[in-house]
Formats: sequence, structure tokens, C-alpha cells
Amino acid sequence: MPNYDPKTFYDELVANRLVVPSGVLGAFGRGAVFEDVLEHLDALLLRTILEDGVESMTFPPVIDRDIVERTGYMDSFPNLCGTIHSFLGPERDARAVSQRIEAGKPWADLLGMTDVVLNPAACYPLYPTCAGVLPEGGRHVTMLAWVYRQEPSSEPTRMRSFRVREVVRIGTPPEVVAWRDMWLSQGIALLESIALPARADIAADPFFGRGGKMLAAGQLDQKLKFEVLIPVISEENPTACGSFNYHQDKFGTAFGIRTRDGQVAHSACLGFGLERLTMALFKTHGFDPAAWPPAVRDRLWP
Amino acid sequence: MPNYDPKTFYDELVANRLVVPSGVLGAFGRGAVFEDVLEHLDALLLRTILEDGVESMTFPPVIDRDIVERTGYMDSFPNLCGTIHSFLGPERDARAVSQRIEAGKPWADLLGMTDVVLNPAACYPLYPTCAGVLPEGGRHVTMLAWVYRQEPSSEPTRMRSFRVREVVRIGTPPEVVAWRDMWLSQGIALLESIALPARADIAADPFFGRGGKMLAAGQLDQKLKFEVLIPVISEENPTACGSFNYHQDKFGTAFGIRTRDGQVAHSACLGFGLERLTMALFKTHGFDPAAWPPAVRDRLWP
Repeated sequence: MPNYDPKTFYDELVANRLVVPSGVLGAFGRGAVFEDVLEHLDALLLRTILEDGVESMTFPPVIDRDIVERTGYMDSFPNLCGTIHSFLGPERDARAVSQRIEAGKPWADLLGMTDVVLNPAACYPLYPTCAGVLPEGGRHVTMLAWVYRQEPSSEPTRMRSFRVREVVRIGTPPEVVAWRDMWLSQGIALLESIALPARADIAADPFFGRGGKMLAAGQLDQKLKFEVLIPVISEENPTACGSFNYHQDKFGTAFGIRTRDGQVAHSACLGFGLERLTMALFKTHGFDPAAWPPAVRDRLWP
Repeated sequence: MPNYDPKTFYDELVANRLVVPSGVLGAFGRGAVFEDVLEHLDALLLRTILEDGVESMTFPPVIDRDIVERTGYMDSFPNLCGTIHSFLGPERDARAVSQRIEAGKPWADLLGMTDVVLNPAACYPLYPTCAGVLPEGGRHVTMLAWVYRQEPSSEPTRMRSFRVREVVRIGTPPEVVAWRDMWLSQGIALLESIALPARADIAADPFFGRGGKMLAAGQLDQKLKFEVLIPVISEENPTACGSFNYHQDKFGTAFGIRTRDGQVAHSACLGFGLERLTMALFKTHGFDPAAWPPAVRDRLWP
């Protein structure tokens, strides 16, 4: 009978040198064995993803601020976005920054906002690159990216900075929905192949504030979001380790993406939380990968 | 006779789908072939690095703001640091963020500074984890991290967000200096093994402002920094693709790291700029890795 106390799980991750504590919540280091598991898990996902002839791209952890402004991210998640600021002033004002820091005083007002923000979801930087008319059959792209959510927590699965392996489908509504449904079963089967007790459920985004409750209700109603749930720090409230989102025409409209018949393109994405899945493996199979079931090891280290 | 025009090189990277343009300077996407070369280059570096029994860790692209405050980073490079800000207010103030964005007005003043900043150098998050007395023989750690420098440029090798493979040595001054000298020759030999025309030279950091000139002169005088230079966008001004920094007791003092004999520990680091080295490979051997010299291919895809 596993123990589901989050504090105990964090302490075990640290004791096994899987997590390297830092001075800030949700932004710890990862040890060599943690990374080895994460990399092989990603390679397993990628083998299945690339079978479908998907394009692969890599984007940095910072993206054009225009993307979050244009897509209304700040309407839904103003509390989660991390914007990047910097000292943009002339040389004569720079000394004040150091003086404030030495005096232990706030120095944010000496900085200016740059044109980049931390990437809130791996697929965001893709959409502006798809502006215009899609090729026949639409687009089908995968990417791994570091994403950021401003939600400091000592609960180990609730990180501020983590990696997501995403697959994105952009095309006509039937193309996108068929692809999403195919992945709903394929995704669960993939995680079951490494003996993770995963199940899918309809879900809603954590939209901000009271107004967000209505958005969440609409999302649930239309079954636009599914999550892949695995018990990691609780059996009653399993952890969302993957997420399927059908955006309908949201990104197509925001970035002028059209299908060949002149309609606004639809899109859907599927994201695997790599750190959460890695933690799910440690929780399910123990802290020493050498002692994991041979069938699981064979899948991860083929 | 290669053409060294930066604009032409960028256009060629895009035409060959190695770089995916974005709306912001210095934060473009990378195509699949670019990533394949970068990953195998990193694996080659790592094979040599791990031979020496080095520990491996991974840190996120954001780090504790205390690290840059405590180490005087804002004295030397106030213009390069990216701080992370977020909406930290109550729900009743959140609507103003969206309203400002919709009206096309600045919204930075509605945000607050968080306790994290973008990591300016891959090794920074390591030092606080080494506080206290070092084990016999000191520490020897490698990490790959996304780092950030606020210097927007259309010149392709001058990125704002890029990856660095670093190796760090912390110990007594003789341990650290001997390690740095060993790597100076080993590092050049490693790059020569993939037929890159690399050479090392004494260098100085781009310290900010007029006061920075004195810091740079001292650094040159004491030979604290070496760079590995390869022609990528200019023959006269080759690109710094690697950097060796001897910090003396800077981080030992800032984070209370001591050797077993009670002295303040010294440290040095060696960083390889993975995107710049990947671009150097494309510049030197052409845009199609399948057509690279067999000896180079054998080293990268063993």
C-alpha cells in the first residue's frame, strides 16, 4: 500500500539524488538518474510520435510576447504567465540597480518589459509560423520545450519550470478530431506499456477567478480537454501527467491559419508532462530503475 | 572561399529548415536536422566529460534571483539579465491586465517581480548547492542548460536564448587551475576531431559601461578567461563557441564553499555554446550533414 504524502515523496526524491533542492519553490535541479529516465521516456514517446511522419521542431523557453497577448492568455491565466524584464536604461542609471540590491531594496521599477515571455505551453510558438494556407493534409508537428507556470508550491509534481513533449495537429475539424481521438487511446496504451496506471478523464483548465468558472464549465460541456491521470502524490486526486486540448478555431483565427478550402484551421495538441511521468515511474516502480520490472525496462532501454 | 556575411548565413539556415524564424530577435526555433546535430555534438562532448567521473545535473532555465543578487551579476551585466515578473495581485485587479492589452497600452506596471530570473550561465544554480565543506578532491559537475542574455540581434550566432554544455570544477586553487589547463588542450583537440578550425585566446567578459573596461583589463591581465574561437560569420572576428572561466574565490565566498583544509574554495567552469558549435559545423562542412567528411560523421554518429 503506497504512501501518498507529498512531503515524504519529495524527501525520497531528494534522498535518492533524483531531485537537487534549490532556494526557490518549483524550480529544483534534477539528478543524473532522473534525467536518464526522463530522456528514455521521451525517446519512447517520440518513437511512437514519429511513426506517424510528424515534423520535429525545438523552441527556446522564451517566446514572442505578442503570442500571449494575441491569444488572450492573460484573460484566462494572468496569474500563471512569466514576463521577462531587463535593465533597458542608459549607463548613468545602471548603478542604481546595484545600489538597491546592496541596500536590500526592491529594484523592479528600474527595469523595463522586454518583447519576450516564458513559454506557457510547448505548442504556442508553432502557431505564428503556420500563418497562411496549410499544405494538403494540414500540419503535424512535435516539440519538447521547457514551459513556465507561476504557481510556487512545495508539492513536487507542481513545478514552475518543467518540460513538455507535445504533438500538435492543425487542419480541418474532422482531421483534428479524428487525430485527437486516435491519440486518446494510443496515449493511454503507451503509458500502460510501461505499467503506469493511467486513465483519461474530461477536464477543465484552471481559468483564473470567478469568471473562469464559466469558461471551465463550457470546456467540460464541449469535452474540449482530456487529461491523463496517474496516482503520484494522491490516490483520490491523481496527477495530470498528460493533456489533450481541442482548441477549435482559436489559434487559426488568432494567427490567420487557413485550410486549403479557405476555412479557418482548427487545432488540437497533446502534451506529456515529462517530469510528472518520470515521477509517476518512480512512484509506481520504486526509486531504483535497475530494479524495475524487466518489461518496463525493455520498453525504456530497448 | 566562404562567404562570411551574417545575413546570408541566417537566410541559408532558414532556407535549409535549420532555423525556424520567430517574431522576436535571437529566439528562433530550431529544425529537426539542427537538433540532431546539436544532440550528437553534445553526446560527443559528454563522452569525454564523463570519462573523468564527473557528476551530472540538470537545472531549469529559471533560477533563484538571490544567486544573481549575491554574486554581483547586476554590477557587471545589468543589461543582460532577464528577471521574471508576473501578475501577483488580487482578482479584482486582473481585468486591468486584459484591458490594457486590448487597448494596446503598456501593462508592465500591473506586474510584480518574482523570486526567479532567467539563468544567465549554466553553472550558476550549482554553487548554492555546494555550500559547506567540499568532499575530498572537490566537486566536478556537468550540466546542460538554456541560458538567457538580453541582447536582441539579427546576427544568427548572437542569440538571447541558447544552450550551454558546462563542466565545473570546485576545489583548491591548484586542483582548479590544473583542471582548467588540462581542458584548454583537451577542448581544442575535441573540436579539431570534428574538423572545426578552433583556437583558444585570452578574453574578457562584456562588462557593462565605462567602469567595465577596468574589470575587463584586470581579467585579461590575470588570464582568468579564455575563449574557443571559430570563424562562423567572420574570419577576422571568429565566434566565441566556448569559454573557460577561472572565478578564483568568487563563488566560494558568495556561497560559503570551503575546502577540507578550511580555505575558501576556488572554482572554474568551461562552457560550450551548443548552438554556436552546431552553426560552426554547418558553416565549415556545409548544410547537409549526410555530405560531411566521413571522419566527422563517424565522430558525431558513432
